[in-house]
Amino acid sequence: MIYFDNAATSYPKPEALYQEIGNRMKTYGANPGRSGHEFGLETNRAIYETREALNQIFHGENPLHFVFTANATDSINLVILGLLKKGDHVIATETEHNSVLRPLELAKSRGVSVSLVTVDDHGWVNPKEIEEEICARTKLVVCTHASNVTGAIQPIERIAEITKEKGVYFLVDAAQSAGVLPIDLSKTKIDFLAITGHKSLYGPQGIGSLYIRDPMSLPVVKTGGTGSRSSDLKQPDAMPDRFESGTVNTPGILGLQMGLDFVRSRGREKLFAQEFALTQVLMKELNKIPGIQLYGPPIGDPRVPVVSFNLGDLDSAEMSFLLDDQFDIITRGGLHCAPLIHRRLGTMEQGAVRVSLGAFSTMQEIESFLEAIRAIQKMR
Amino acid sequence: MIYFDNAATSYPKPEALYQEIGNRMKTYGANPGRSGHEFGLETNRAIYETREALNQIFHGENPLHFVFTANATDSINLVILGLLKKGDHVIATETEHNSVLRPLELAKSRGVSVSLVTVDDHGWVNPKEIEEEICARTKLVVCTHASNVTGAIQPIERIAEITKEKGVYFLVDAAQSAGVLPIDLSKTKIDFLAITGHKSLYGPQGIGSLYIRDPMSLPVVKTGGTGSRSSDLKQPDAMPDRFESGTVNTPGILGLQMGLDFVRSRGREKLFAQEFALTQVLMKELNKIPGIQLYGPPIGDPRVPVVSFNLGDLDSAEMSFLLDDQFDIITRGGLHCAPLIHRRLGTMEQGAVRVSLGAFSTMQEIESFLEAIRAIQKMR
Repeated sequence: MIYFDNAATSYPKPEALYQEIGNRMKTYGANPGRSGHEFGLETNRAIYETREALNQIFHGENPLHFVFTANATDSINLVILGLLKKGDHVIATETEHNSVLRPLELAKSRGVSVSLVTVDDHGWVNPKEIEEEICARTKLVVCTHASNVTGAIQPIERIAEITKEKGVYFLVDAAQSAGVLPIDLSKTKIDFLAITGHKSLYGPQGIGSLYIRDPMSLPVVKTGGTGSRSSDLKQPDAMPDRFESGTVNTPGILGLQMGLDFVRSRGREKLFAQEFALTQVLMKELNKIPGIQLYGPPIGDPRVPVVSFNLGDLDSAEMSFLLDDQFDIITRGGLHCAPLIHRRLGTMEQGAVRVSLGAFSTMQEIESFLEAIRAIQKMR
Repeated sequence: MIYFDNAATSYPKPEALYQEIGNRMKTYGANPGRSGHEFGLETNRAIYETREALNQIFHGENPLHFVFTANATDSINLVILGLLKKGDHVIATETEHNSVLRPLELAKSRGVSVSLVTVDDHGWVNPKEIEEEICARTKLVVCTHASNVTGAIQPIERIAEITKEKGVYFLVDAAQSAGVLPIDLSKTKIDFLAITGHKSLYGPQGIGSLYIRDPMSLPVVKTGGTGSRSSDLKQPDAMPDRFESGTVNTPGILGLQMGLDFVRSRGREKLFAQEFALTQVLMKELNKIPGIQLYGPPIGDPRVPVVSFNLGDLDSAEMSFLLDDQFDIITRGGLHCAPLIHRRLGTMEQGAVRVSLGAFSTMQEIESFLEAIRAIQKMR
């Protein structure tokens, strides 16, 4: 099997994760943060080390400002539905995933007004358009760092300068970029960074995180037992308890730690360089095949290792099925949970075939894939 | 080490879970529900099987009405904050965990009125008190099935009759009971059943579920990508997508399935009988030690395998520390995230030492524990 659906979830994970996760669950099996016993404290330490690893990778101010969530969507919901009240205005882009668009739709039903700025034909957002949309009622700007459809990388550093200057909060959806693109919270004023563990951070599914620069700026929308200030019916203000109710996903956190170790040991820049090189070969060779239409940034320009394309008017889901059924190659067809960018690309009907690479993708796999596409093209 | 903190999280988990979880993560490594490829469909099937196993244990109407959440707290938040609007009235009890009390406090700040019925000296709720509190504005009754402090089992079947008759929704917090007490959704009209996977269902931490009898009765408070109806900015109505946004916790679900297999193969009734027998020995013998004060239902009465006690005026956290430090016995002292029941028991200052048993607890462990308590009692 050739697995080219890493933008959905990276696969395989580092072998150490499969080998050791059971052992770690046994070693750190207590309920963290709920008890004074040594067994629980050891589990606490392992969890804290994962926060530290996140803080190191993203250059945060404080490991405790990384709260654990179920996934990037969960992180995004905490911000959008916690921060925005009736009468507020929020700006996002048409390249957002439904993880952003649907919470915005829910916020709209509560009296929040939403502006969506357009992207150009390559899928890029123009920060000036965001700047022009900011008004007195604007409380938040949301932007995906890298598109799961086009692979386009957005200028979040520039958008952070604008939002900082205008005194507006900035939420970045880093689902597709964390672990592969540089994100420096010490230099870029991102107020909320939503990440997921199971993509380019090579952890298991079911664990995400939200970095919150100023914890008291964000009202809570989910409360419960925290193991702290037990006698108090109000959610504690202390981090990370303020945003972590109920027993945390210890196995997910332990697994994420192994994923972060993998990224650190292989080197984020090296991983990106390797995946980018493969992506470029893929695009150049695809481009030579008659009838191929590539989407997103031009060949040579930076992108995350995501390439979407179509072959003539062949339905993308059918192409993806053929690749799976006839060639044992896993891609994804159809729409990719980001409807507005499909509208922009003109692929609302056809969808797009998405190839997304990961740390374990090889040149040989790319060659086999290209062979398959050539064969399908000839069959038509 | 003797582990008596199973009410926090069961430990150990079935050995098969530690042994196989890594392999299963590798076998079912695709992103479920997001793709048409065979690899993803296999993962979908494994996840559906877990819903079926839940539906079987609890006799639900439809496996798809079990949605996966992060934990029982997450499930409870979905109901309390989704259902209750300004002007609504909700009834709960003073034996609730902060997983209920804190979301109720948040609801209160949004204009919901909250009534808490008292419990008697053994920790039991009187359903008549709930009935008397129901008024025209009452929308929801929340009751924990079994207390994490006293072990008292509440008459949820009777409360379900009352709420059904009065046309009020009923939410049961089954964090301490699922897997050990009978819960029959086909006979008991529970509208929302909140469960966690990592206690008496012997799954990993980080996975919970919510059973929703009538999905459209519950407004959504969390939205995002579902892999379905991608082009629609509104959250889909279809179950389970309506309540499952973002990539689900596949490893947690696979682990829960192994936990459910364990409960099924050992037999819930047999597990309960075995733990109850040990609990009774524990209570009887503790009761003979001078200065011991037991809380909760009397010896002989049904309870989940949770026993809270104090020795004279010895601080419960100190007792718990001594047991850990000197005898390698894991218990929990202090307050147990359920402040109002501590107030009722008069243990707001002292807290209580909690011993909670699980499927792997043995008579020999009980004997060692009793020896330790006797030794501590003599030292004083």
